[in-house]
Amino acid sequence: MARKQGSHSDITGPRVRAAALKLFAAHGFAAVSMRQIAAEVGVQAGALYLYTPDKQTLLSDLLETHMGEVLSAWQAELPRIEARGGGPEAGLDAFARFHIRFHLARPQAVFISYMELRNLTPENFAKLEAMRKQYEDGLEQILIEGKARGLFDVSDTKLTTLALISMLNGVLTWYKPEGRLSLDRVESIYADMVSKSVRAQERSAQIA
Amino acid sequence: MARKQGSHSDITGPRVRAAALKLFAAHGFAAVSMRQIAAEVGVQAGALYLYTPDKQTLLSDLLETHMGEVLSAWQAELPRIEARGGGPEAGLDAFARFHIRFHLARPQAVFISYMELRNLTPENFAKLEAMRKQYEDGLEQILIEGKARGLFDVSDTKLTTLALISMLNGVLTWYKPEGRLSLDRVESIYADMVSKSVRAQERSAQIA
Repeated sequence: MARKQGSHSDITGPRVRAAALKLFAAHGFAAVSMRQIAAEVGVQAGALYLYTPDKQTLLSDLLETHMGEVLSAWQAELPRIEARGGGPEAGLDAFARFHIRFHLARPQAVFISYMELRNLTPENFAKLEAMRKQYEDGLEQILIEGKARGLFDVSDTKLTTLALISMLNGVLTWYKPEGRLSLDRVESIYADMVSKSVRAQERSAQIA
Repeated sequence: MARKQGSHSDITGPRVRAAALKLFAAHGFAAVSMRQIAAEVGVQAGALYLYTPDKQTLLSDLLETHMGEVLSAWQAELPRIEARGGGPEAGLDAFARFHIRFHLARPQAVFISYMELRNLTPENFAKLEAMRKQYEDGLEQILIEGKARGLFDVSDTKLTTLALISMLNGVLTWYKPEGRLSLDRVESIYADMVSKSVRAQERSAQIA
């Protein structure tokens, strides 16, 4: 059976990105040279420039690829949430669990996405911020809908969106797969805290 | 009136730390040389070594000084909380407001405290972790007490401690003094979310 042959950049791209990600995360963008990245890939520095014009493009490419993956993975969750009946409470629970699970699997990309923003050109920074805002908007829409239905008591949906994402990001700084808590358990505890932090009081009273 | 003359390191220390903090935050620890730090202070590289034996000591000194300031500032809050009647709910509210206010005033120290942990020697990392744990324990004690009194519904006090601190840290990534919300308003919104995220259901029902 004939096997399709990828182009040069199809083959090299993922290897270059993986090498750059590893080195940027370990030493920081400013401390890593194109020559070191080439050595990590196992090619001459000249060959690296066939794939990317400079280190800035490589960084921007890495961060945008990561945010693109976040966005499409979340989009892929939406039909599953709908299939389970949808609604803001289900959406919020799904978002919390998705965010933890997805990002825990990519600690280096998350780390440089936070740390290396300062090294993006203003133009590349603006592109990335627009993608990040699109992801945040997904969560904010859930909060807005829950607030409109009287399920959530949220005085500022934008601020609450940012606060919840920060809380969820925190898992990445301490979670160890070999630790005392399973990922499922951690997801449940966080999803519960997220839910409680926005739930309308009246509703708890009705349930009690 | 006679003015006390400080020792060489009394005078140089704060200037060296300020220069190192600024450069590490802007370029990353690995990308900054002792020579650049000396130039920022306005001394010869040789003079810098009178103050600190190496860049690692300087980084560790910076991070420990910051954590020491966090710890003593929080200790100083405790009598004020007691004076207002104390209790876990007042303690939690005070912690949320303190954490935001204190850290927002020191964005560079917070940034390198997160980013440069990877560059500490294991020994220096362990010292810093012990100090950080001491700070986290302060919040966890509040949660343990609130849980014991039936005021808080927290399944895992350690995890909740980390989740709340992450949520509060998030303010640092987006807060702008010239933005649409005052610091007081941001503190109030966050303190309210923190409170709601741990509050026992029974209690909301009683109030309603």
